[in-house]
Amino acid sequence: MALRPKHGLNLDIRDVQAASERIRPHIHHTPVVTSSRLDAESGARLFFKCENLQKAGAFKSRGACNAVYQLPPEVAARGVITHSSGNHGAALARAAQLRGIGATIVVPTNANPVKKAAIASYGALIVECEPTLEARESGVAKIVEETGAHLVPPYDDDRIIAGQGTAALEMVRDIKDGLDLLLVPVGGGGLLAGTSLVGADRGLAVFGAEPEGADDAYRSLATGIRVTEQVPKTVADGLRTTLGQRNFEIIQMLVSGILRVSDLETVAAMKRLWTRLKLVVEPSSAVTYAAITRYPEVFQGRRVGVVLSGGNIDPDDLPFNALS
Amino acid sequence: MALRPKHGLNLDIRDVQAASERIRPHIHHTPVVTSSRLDAESGARLFFKCENLQKAGAFKSRGACNAVYQLPPEVAARGVITHSSGNHGAALARAAQLRGIGATIVVPTNANPVKKAAIASYGALIVECEPTLEARESGVAKIVEETGAHLVPPYDDDRIIAGQGTAALEMVRDIKDGLDLLLVPVGGGGLLAGTSLVGADRGLAVFGAEPEGADDAYRSLATGIRVTEQVPKTVADGLRTTLGQRNFEIIQMLVSGILRVSDLETVAAMKRLWTRLKLVVEPSSAVTYAAITRYPEVFQGRRVGVVLSGGNIDPDDLPFNALS
Repeated sequence: MALRPKHGLNLDIRDVQAASERIRPHIHHTPVVTSSRLDAESGARLFFKCENLQKAGAFKSRGACNAVYQLPPEVAARGVITHSSGNHGAALARAAQLRGIGATIVVPTNANPVKKAAIASYGALIVECEPTLEARESGVAKIVEETGAHLVPPYDDDRIIAGQGTAALEMVRDIKDGLDLLLVPVGGGGLLAGTSLVGADRGLAVFGAEPEGADDAYRSLATGIRVTEQVPKTVADGLRTTLGQRNFEIIQMLVSGILRVSDLETVAAMKRLWTRLKLVVEPSSAVTYAAITRYPEVFQGRRVGVVLSGGNIDPDDLPFNALS
Repeated sequence: MALRPKHGLNLDIRDVQAASERIRPHIHHTPVVTSSRLDAESGARLFFKCENLQKAGAFKSRGACNAVYQLPPEVAARGVITHSSGNHGAALARAAQLRGIGATIVVPTNANPVKKAAIASYGALIVECEPTLEARESGVAKIVEETGAHLVPPYDDDRIIAGQGTAALEMVRDIKDGLDLLLVPVGGGGLLAGTSLVGADRGLAVFGAEPEGADDAYRSLATGIRVTEQVPKTVADGLRTTLGQRNFEIIQMLVSGILRVSDLETVAAMKRLWTRLKLVVEPSSAVTYAAITRYPEVFQGRRVGVVLSGGNIDPDDLPFNALS
């Protein structure tokens, strides 16, 4: 019998390692890039894991593939379903298409049109709903009852958490001289929880970066009581969700802290990343570099692994001018 | 004695090969990326050479290093000078800084501010002038007379042409299954002329892509008379220059054709490249994909090597909304 981890959670590094093996044929092993200019600007040594270059344009392909490829054939045959503001929906649609099964995605009406178009391009059925967690969940429940489709939640799911952790796992394996800490955005908490399993295994500090206008993770961690409702107000459209229960438990135990940033800081960070790395990253990805700039005491002199979580933006609707 | 090439020009593939060896320590060997979506959209097999990820953000670092690193010490000691709307200036400033010599860059008043900031960041002296070729050249001549600085022209120079050709040389070496044709933007013609030396050596067709609002290369090739003055009107700020004399001679002999595209097509292409490749490319780089879309008869069914020439944009001044 395998030993359970000392932190007492359901998941540990072995789940992330197994996910990494399972999804290898279906995802990109994304590159890690560096910039001497950004290092000079921040006083830290920064390693950016390019999940904006991941299949379907975001790390979400990792969790989605990990879930879809472990479904028994008879479950898979009934198709999969989820609710998503965008990237998870596209990733699940893609994973289902790869395995040759159906997918239905419940999408809030305020979702990013580029992300919605991506979902459609992978052949999934799109069902629209009001932009609240309640509407999203009840929309899914209704379709599950009708069709028997299997729910793959966007973040509050062990398979998703383990899958999202594989980005950090690749990073700590690829960066030979080691890291001091890991920094990722936090929305529903799939990426942060998965990353923290890797950090715990390697003895690295792990931080989450979060928009001030959707700071439920910050408040949940501060009070010890999970915030389950908020009216998010942030340009970071991937981070408007509230923290899942499983995610909260893992984050509470393994994460060092949540660093909040303003939308102005996020947009400035996004411009720096575009200008220096020549990479298209979405606002949700830029909260990390914003946090590095805002909290120098956490990062200066450290070797920092950062996950650039996604690159799905609508070029016609960039937040640059709106805020500057 | 080395044989001169059969086409009767001063330059041939050996100059490009020598440049490639000379500049190797000072530039990036940039990656080649592909996109199954863009392939499906275009009906061609596209290979994008990422010179937007090149040092100083553009292929211009190749020619600039090739020129600077073959100067005799006593010439180099007096510093280098050029006129440039941006990328060549930044590239020359960087090359001079690397070699530890001075650089003066004469910059037209309408130059892209991001490119101007890049020049300054490499420690060069910036001198502003009116945005005409005459003003640029007379500005340079005056400073050369005063300081004895060595002129490194932006494109009408054998060292520059050979250096710019190294991007295509890397590409034909790296793409093991071969290519049918090469496609690059044309402004002053350094990149196109250098690329055509590689194409001639490998027996590949070579095309240039050019904005309709700065179509001097198209008209020069059509009439056989080099256009030396134009009032350019295009979002592609790197392509507003007119073709150099040496460049014209090489292009006339070795290039299959010049494909013109509108600014609307260029901006649409830039959005596609950003959205699908997740790479920041400047408008001057997007004329190539615009040409692929507009002239399917040239590209369909072919294996096409495309140089994404640069990624220096100002996030606050994107041309998206102006044109849509």
